Amino acid sequence: MTVPTDPETGEFVRAPNHFAARITADGRDGWPVEAGRYRLVVSRACPWASRGLVVRRLLGLEQAISVAVADPIQDERSWRFTLDPDGRDPVLGIRFLAEAYHAAQPDYDGGISVPAVVDIPSGKLVTNDYPQITLDFSTEWTSYHRPGAPELYPEKHRDEIDEINQAVYRDVNAAVYEAGFATKQSAYDDAYTRLFARLDQLSDRLSGQRFLVGDTITEADIRLFTTLVRFDPVYHGHFKCNRQKLSELPVLWAYARDLFQTPGFGDTVDFDHIKRHYYQVHEQVNPTRIVPKGPDLRNWATPHGREALGGRPFGDGTPPGPPPAGEVLPPQW
Amino acid sequence: MTVPTDPETGEFVRAPNHFAARITADGRDGWPVEAGRYRLVVSRACPWASRGLVVRRLLGLEQAISVAVADPIQDERSWRFTLDPDGRDPVLGIRFLAEAYHAAQPDYDGGISVPAVVDIPSGKLVTNDYPQITLDFSTEWTSYHRPGAPELYPEKHRDEIDEINQAVYRDVNAAVYEAGFATKQSAYDDAYTRLFARLDQLSDRLSGQRFLVGDTITEADIRLFTTLVRFDPVYHGHFKCNRQKLSELPVLWAYARDLFQTPGFGDTVDFDHIKRHYYQVHEQVNPTRIVPKGPDLRNWATPHGREALGGRPFGDGTPPGPPPAGEVLPPQW
Repeated sequence: MTVPTDPETGEFVRAPNHFAARITADGRDGWPVEAGRYRLVVSRACPWASRGLVVRRLLGLEQAISVAVADPIQDERSWRFTLDPDGRDPVLGIRFLAEAYHAAQPDYDGGISVPAVVDIPSGKLVTNDYPQITLDFSTEWTSYHRPGAPELYPEKHRDEIDEINQAVYRDVNAAVYEAGFATKQSAYDDAYTRLFARLDQLSDRLSGQRFLVGDTITEADIRLFTTLVRFDPVYHGHFKCNRQKLSELPVLWAYARDLFQTPGFGDTVDFDHIKRHYYQVHEQVNPTRIVPKGPDLRNWATPHGREALGGRPFGDGTPPGPPPAGEVLPPQW
Repeated sequence: MTVPTDPETGEFVRAPNHFAARITADGRDGWPVEAGRYRLVVSRACPWASRGLVVRRLLGLEQAISVAVADPIQDERSWRFTLDPDGRDPVLGIRFLAEAYHAAQPDYDGGISVPAVVDIPSGKLVTNDYPQITLDFSTEWTSYHRPGAPELYPEKHRDEIDEINQAVYRDVNAAVYEAGFATKQSAYDDAYTRLFARLDQLSDRLSGQRFLVGDTITEADIRLFTTLVRFDPVYHGHFKCNRQKLSELPVLWAYARDLFQTPGFGDTVDFDHIKRHYYQVHEQVNPTRIVPKGPDLRNWATPHGREALGGRPFGDGTPPGPPPAGEVLPPQW
């Protein structure tokens, strides 16, 4: 995998999302909400895609939107369905996610990223616009939400959620990549400094309240969670985000375990996919492609004590039931 | 820096020490103990060389044996005196340690390693046999030991020290390199497994006694210390020895801090040299050569509580005074 960096500054340059159509209740982009019509393609390794897995579980959209899980190891044609029989996604019938990109735009030669939502009848990619995908699950797919689904993007808190999401994107979600992919010390130093300053600030905020916004789980928590859950297994060592481990930051560590132990979060996390992806795909960071055996992850199951802060994880709703049969992951430790 | 690995097994192959003459009280190898005659060449980055720095300090050999500190960053000619004015060691007058190797053996084409003891009058390397160098400091240089110097290799405990040293060499000192330089997963897995099994066993041993052998500091503690002090800054991330950080292994962490805070140990440790060496020299492990800013090392100064186990660090002797003026290191955090 080639990682684009700026030759002057050594900074990692993230590619923009190209396909930004929205699937909406009113179908105004030509893609109406409809059960069974779309397939969410993810890698369980990928933090951006994993947001969608969590939101789908919390809202009970598993029956309405099916999921294709790509092999965590990309090849030069990017994400592959090599985990499926005959190396083909059984619903889309394709071997590479790129095929859906090219069905949508034959001359497309940009990056192939997850999450991707594909229209099953036409095989065309609809959107890879990850920040919008989860918001639309919350706000456009309401007719398919399960009874008791939480409000993950409540109207009255949207400004605050958006503001936090922006800071968390810049200084946490993206900063870990900027630290890890930097090719100059100054670019790394800058990302590291922003990351830990922001984690300190989030720790302060979360020391007195159970969740980031209001007293319930919101989109903001999901976006922070998918980076935190990868912190000790990958970002701390592989991306050199090593001031402390997450497990050495007491507030954030308890917060992350609280979410991990909440149905819909930990049951979407595949540490094997996560570790193999980062350590084997980024040869420019880890040329031997050896995957560390550590860290010991059993500590994710330890009591977090965050109930003492109050909060109502699902607001007036309820936790989701267990994952569908085909989506139950092997024991993680 | 090229690292030799076995193409079949992916295992790191350590080069043997080539120059094994001994400097003895009776001078039987032609190299008699003599104050001011020999120069100990080290890198403060190197755990094998750092043993010599600690033993020299504990025994008070600073006046008898001077020290040359190489730049932590080797180039293709290996260790350099680029930290010194004009890039020359002021005593030996050479720019590269290799010059002393070639003075001793003009056709030598093996590795250039520290520690190295050089005969100042002839400029010839005498020995790079690191396991013997420190033992000879203890047993052959006794006439130059300071008053109150400890017995680091006491006769009555030699068998036990030798036995521990052997296990610590194989499963700790060398295993971290074998984990980090492995080019096949199985070679890495094997080194990682041996390393942590041995650390667990050493933790058990040290949970009830302050030092590894007897109730005083010995050579065995020094050999374990120089690996432990590098664990969190380097081996945990760079060499993927990441089941836990040292700071997450309570007994070994307290033990390491106890030693670090003992005069003669921590005052020889240069974390800047350590981190820059590993991360910048091993391009086959870290191609970007970026040096992590973490971990936060201030925790090395925290109370360790090991006094409660009793023990007499220096036996019937006393701690050394402060390092000589020219050897005082800048603040480490």
